Amino acid sequence: MTSKVQLAYIACIGSGVIGSGWIARFIENGVNVNIYDPDPKAKLSVERTLENAHIAYDNLTSIPRLKKGQIYFKKSINETVTDVDLVIESVPERLDIKQKVYKEIEEYCDESTLITSSTSGIIPSKLQKKFKYPDRFYVGHPFNPVYLLPLVEIVGGSKTSKDTIMKAKQIYKSIGMHPVHIKKEIEAFVADRLLEAMWRESLWLIKDGICTTNELDDIVRFGFGLRYAQMGVFDTYRVAGGDAGMRHFMEQFGPCLKWQWTKLMDVPEFDSELIELISSQSDKQSGHLEIREMERLRDSNLIAILKGLKINNWGAGKNLKDYEDSLKMIHKKNFLTHHYKPELIKTLEIRVPADWADYNGHMNEARYLDCFCEATDEFMKIIGCDETYVKNGSSYFTVETHIRHLTETNIGETLSIETKLIYSVGKKMHLFHIMKNKKNIITATGEHMLIHVSLKTRSASEPSPDIQKRLNLIFSKHVNLPSPKGLGNAINIPNPS
Amino acid sequence: MTSKVQLAYIACIGSGVIGSGWIARFIENGVNVNIYDPDPKAKLSVERTLENAHIAYDNLTSIPRLKKGQIYFKKSINETVTDVDLVIESVPERLDIKQKVYKEIEEYCDESTLITSSTSGIIPSKLQKKFKYPDRFYVGHPFNPVYLLPLVEIVGGSKTSKDTIMKAKQIYKSIGMHPVHIKKEIEAFVADRLLEAMWRESLWLIKDGICTTNELDDIVRFGFGLRYAQMGVFDTYRVAGGDAGMRHFMEQFGPCLKWQWTKLMDVPEFDSELIELISSQSDKQSGHLEIREMERLRDSNLIAILKGLKINNWGAGKNLKDYEDSLKMIHKKNFLTHHYKPELIKTLEIRVPADWADYNGHMNEARYLDCFCEATDEFMKIIGCDETYVKNGSSYFTVETHIRHLTETNIGETLSIETKLIYSVGKKMHLFHIMKNKKNIITATGEHMLIHVSLKTRSASEPSPDIQKRLNLIFSKHVNLPSPKGLGNAINIPNPS
Repeated sequence: MTSKVQLAYIACIGSGVIGSGWIARFIENGVNVNIYDPDPKAKLSVERTLENAHIAYDNLTSIPRLKKGQIYFKKSINETVTDVDLVIESVPERLDIKQKVYKEIEEYCDESTLITSSTSGIIPSKLQKKFKYPDRFYVGHPFNPVYLLPLVEIVGGSKTSKDTIMKAKQIYKSIGMHPVHIKKEIEAFVADRLLEAMWRESLWLIKDGICTTNELDDIVRFGFGLRYAQMGVFDTYRVAGGDAGMRHFMEQFGPCLKWQWTKLMDVPEFDSELIELISSQSDKQSGHLEIREMERLRDSNLIAILKGLKINNWGAGKNLKDYEDSLKMIHKKNFLTHHYKPELIKTLEIRVPADWADYNGHMNEARYLDCFCEATDEFMKIIGCDETYVKNGSSYFTVETHIRHLTETNIGETLSIETKLIYSVGKKMHLFHIMKNKKNIITATGEHMLIHVSLKTRSASEPSPDIQKRLNLIFSKHVNLPSPKGLGNAINIPNPS
Repeated sequence: MTSKVQLAYIACIGSGVIGSGWIARFIENGVNVNIYDPDPKAKLSVERTLENAHIAYDNLTSIPRLKKGQIYFKKSINETVTDVDLVIESVPERLDIKQKVYKEIEEYCDESTLITSSTSGIIPSKLQKKFKYPDRFYVGHPFNPVYLLPLVEIVGGSKTSKDTIMKAKQIYKSIGMHPVHIKKEIEAFVADRLLEAMWRESLWLIKDGICTTNELDDIVRFGFGLRYAQMGVFDTYRVAGGDAGMRHFMEQFGPCLKWQWTKLMDVPEFDSELIELISSQSDKQSGHLEIREMERLRDSNLIAILKGLKINNWGAGKNLKDYEDSLKMIHKKNFLTHHYKPELIKTLEIRVPADWADYNGHMNEARYLDCFCEATDEFMKIIGCDETYVKNGSSYFTVETHIRHLTETNIGETLSIETKLIYSVGKKMHLFHIMKNKKNIITATGEHMLIHVSLKTRSASEPSPDIQKRLNLIFSKHVNLPSPKGLGNAINIPNPS
């Protein structure tokens, strides 16, 4: 997320599955959204998606989020598109309907306002044909669930300006997405072409009775689906080809194309029989789950995958990390910039994600040490024991920890940590972290003894003069602050009876 | 993993990418493998895969693994297949070569030995045509990297017995895989049909200049690839269709099939120009990475995805959890079965996975509390505070923790925890965990005060008489054991200077 753009208001025309997904992603990122949808059920569908997204974002990241944007249901396109930075059209996939909507949008919004279609198939040159100002129009094709999947295909028409494409990319990056600009127009663009190919082949496999929908789905998610969450078609084959390289792989596997390994030369008859066959198999496979339940399961799985890939800073996981870093940057502005004050140092602010809960229904005890550990890392950075210092061969190791759990912490709570330097003499550094919730109640304290070490000899060593100087300065400011309750405590052992 | 089958030795004929993947998966699960491959480079390729798999399994799970199987390179098929339970053929995809190999295999192995082909395309009825005992032959088609991806497609030919298919399924489950039995033969089976469809469409998209290989790969891994790691083609569309159901979805999207949204009616000319176009784009995309590096990245990402899905106990993540549970069951046999002895109780054995390391190059401090927390859970189960007890509304909460870090712990080390009950009076329970490494050196201790609580009122309450009785019994055995060093310690604070 590089937030060069600052959106205040956008407009969504149409709020079905895709439209409401857009709304959710924008408001979760602090943007207000005007909504127009003549369907009387629209409001309910939006609320449902927003609830899913709220739960999903609670689980997605422990960095506190921005203040949510507001939604405003409007009664006409006129009211909806006035004074907005972007208009997103997500109405049914018919050229005539879309063109009618565009005409009305153009009538009421600024001539510089960006207008985009969520179409999954119609090329932008066709869509922008009757525009008064076609240069500001493009296709921005997202993927369900829009609030979680980072991909958006950006496609310009023959009259779309370069500036429009550039701005569009910035907008999507600012809401945590990964835009891919497809430079040549083609119906269905790229992702849906691949999906359509797979869908057709899937229909044949079911129709011909080779497997059931359940078996086919298992074959996807226990096999190549896992690969495609992290590398695409070409990188996957590149690796499979081994050291001989891509040319060798292509030469080896190319001839298979001539074999009759696919039914794709033909399209299966889409009759009621095929619909019944597939629907009944699908019912058998997943009919025991409400769609709502499946949405939550899907979201929770996607988040688990994103969080997993984040540890490796890879693909959609890197995307999530960048997004969190940008949130941290925004929050950092609220942190103290000068730490040499006679007050505790704010070292952490965190939101408790859903997967930190344990069987007791609250934040698991081990996650407290994760938080204290992160607060210690922040304190180390402040005194100059940063990445470079560690790379140069020195660091601090924790040798002793004392945690007091004072109140329970629930999922979704915001916790902050303030740190007192108890003392620092030579190799030793004694820290006391106070963790509070939003009600300013102390939920836990963490007391830690650290030893400065050489990472080469793995034994105690003196910190650099620079670090010692900063520690002394902080100590001089902290020494007269009140001694925190619980300092130096041990677990009480009753007298032997 | 339901280990009804106990394999001792298997044979692998052919040890390329797929063959060596099989070897890796079997030896990581304690099975010995005889190998035959006339290629002089075979040994090197196997060693490389085994090294990748070793690193991967170190990261995959913290449950200590079984003792690895041995590999034996043999000089003939004769030596290779004698006295084995299963023969896996992974030679080049030519019917004549395969049939020649089968003839030799059948000559030397028992008539009851299962024989399987890793072919990705040739139907088993063709392969088993010249077999003397064709009933024991089937196709077991795995996916690269075989040691990590759980899917194996099992396909029987017209002469394959039901018993063979049943045994094959058990074998794959016993090595942590997810077998899917495809009941009707078809060339390329199911997964490769879907992949072939996508591959053809991908070739067109590159050939026509719609996007580059890099853009296409991003479109996969930031979009639908994430979805397919957890739900397949049909469940994904079922959810997208919403409450209206699968029939509605099919009726709505069916007509698109008639649109010209694919080039699949035709096959692109696979000439040197296309090979060059794709290979050069692929070089530009990933040429800066060694294939070896990409293999490690891929494995590490797949593991992150599997571990992520494990938290949700879903799909390939559930598979991993079942696998770990089966390992735990095997290890549990080594644990004490009767805990009322005058000795410490073994509450945990764990292997440190790669992702537990921090920037200091050793096991992160917070992971120690994860281990102590798990040991406490195990102790709670022993005294009867198990899932049912918690469900009925009572549990223990940790209120105080004291950790002493005594030595560093490296990735790959095995740690075990022994627990002493210091005392238990009324609502209080005082535990002391001693964590040791394989050299019997104490790496850390964890001292914990827990309070019995009602999960309804969230406040202190008396444990059940049953729990109190067990605690008393354990206490009577532990009370005279020596007091562990560090018990009751506090972090030392020097006198104010």
